[in-house]
Amino acid sequence: MFRIGLCQIDGSSDKKANLKLASEYVRRAADGGAQVVSLPEMWNCPYAAKFFRTAAEPCDGQTVEFMSRLAEELKIYLIGGSIPEIEDGRIYNTSFSFDREGRMIGRFRKVHLFDVDIEGGIRFKESDTLTPGNEMLVLDTDLCKIGVAICYDVRFPEWFRKMTLSGAKLVVLPAAFNMTTGPAHWDLTMRARALDNQIYLAANARAWDSDGPYHSYGNSCIVSPWGDFVSHGDEKTAIIYGDIDPDYVEKIREQLPLLRHRRPELY
Amino acid sequence: MFRIGLCQIDGSSDKKANLKLASEYVRRAADGGAQVVSLPEMWNCPYAAKFFRTAAEPCDGQTVEFMSRLAEELKIYLIGGSIPEIEDGRIYNTSFSFDREGRMIGRFRKVHLFDVDIEGGIRFKESDTLTPGNEMLVLDTDLCKIGVAICYDVRFPEWFRKMTLSGAKLVVLPAAFNMTTGPAHWDLTMRARALDNQIYLAANARAWDSDGPYHSYGNSCIVSPWGDFVSHGDEKTAIIYGDIDPDYVEKIREQLPLLRHRRPELY
Repeated sequence: MFRIGLCQIDGSSDKKANLKLASEYVRRAADGGAQVVSLPEMWNCPYAAKFFRTAAEPCDGQTVEFMSRLAEELKIYLIGGSIPEIEDGRIYNTSFSFDREGRMIGRFRKVHLFDVDIEGGIRFKESDTLTPGNEMLVLDTDLCKIGVAICYDVRFPEWFRKMTLSGAKLVVLPAAFNMTTGPAHWDLTMRARALDNQIYLAANARAWDSDGPYHSYGNSCIVSPWGDFVSHGDEKTAIIYGDIDPDYVEKIREQLPLLRHRRPELY
Repeated sequence: MFRIGLCQIDGSSDKKANLKLASEYVRRAADGGAQVVSLPEMWNCPYAAKFFRTAAEPCDGQTVEFMSRLAEELKIYLIGGSIPEIEDGRIYNTSFSFDREGRMIGRFRKVHLFDVDIEGGIRFKESDTLTPGNEMLVLDTDLCKIGVAICYDVRFPEWFRKMTLSGAKLVVLPAAFNMTTGPAHWDLTMRARALDNQIYLAANARAWDSDGPYHSYGNSCIVSPWGDFVSHGDEKTAIIYGDIDPDYVEKIREQLPLLRHRRPELY
């Protein structure tokens, strides 16, 4: 059993202020007993295409350096939400993860890009600015195996099945759903992925921001392998805590053996 | 646009009475304007392993004959729930479907068998009695393509993706969740499969029966491709109607192109 703390914060166009805010909340989560702490999607800039390129950093940039030091100082696993990463001129929506010694133990680039145009609702086209990743990430920590995916990746049951079959018992999902798809689909999708795969799912949303270019739905939550909410936030800046019990994952899988009952030869 | 009617009835150990009840409800659904009518899982017997073998019939037996005549007489598509089918001494949980001329247009044998043992809750082991099927079914009707799966098959996202990629815009699911997993997972799972695949899902449960060996959760429902309930029943014997609009499936897929955004090369 271990505790996770999700830092539901927002990112402005002032990167220095964003790092300060992140530092404050990650410290507070560690003080609150969290051994694993996470941050939301694109937390070091506003959530809008035009800011992604200006805020982008290489994988040894200022923000990565900052997260590494924080993880080492606080002796926590830090799933660093995501930030715009630049490599060879291409921008990725990338999540960096760190162990208790501050070593980078994983890099995940968002695989499914968010390109939608809903009548009377949200329009967004990430692929104009971003390049998708192609690799799954499951971290092998001493607590349990932890998958990392980003926001729209959660729409794809195949991706969560793949992490599950690779041993993930917890998936951390930095995210930023919007005010159209958030109320319609956020809770449902988070619960379904956890239940179908009998894993814990910790979805770390951005806080709602009345001034920014994008209004995040918030509602960070942690779902159990039975599909229940362990904890659930609202739209405001906050830390959402939950206790993760890898043995409970095993117990649920024993009683309702969904993974054993799959018929992969037919899919 | 066409109407579907789900006959939420129960099945007793008196097969003649079960056929009479089914006849009454299917007729009533057709009178109510349903062009597609369905029945629940194992509707011609009680839902308990010991009744499956005694009630089992070959694929040209009395119950199939009855359904064929009913479909022809009422000029409806009939998705005949499921019944215990016997072939070469093996028993299957089989759904037979009929077109408006009463021709059998599909046979689906439940692929995922329900073997669970939940602490303080339900215990059931279908595989002691039943043999699983190995084939997907998507009916090519003049209304739209209609997938058919049975109850526990809904637990497997892979199976619903497969039907969706084969063109199903509606899936009909004869079912009989129980009083443990029903309250916990029924609504969530039905909504998730519809939303993830952007299809209509019509789940036709058995009615609750205070006397029988198995208490069905009931709650037959029809979910839209946006993940909303089109209609939702309670536990009592009833017909649940819903209007199915294949054009709305296309509209949702245009605005939120989940199927186009899949990365099958990575799964």
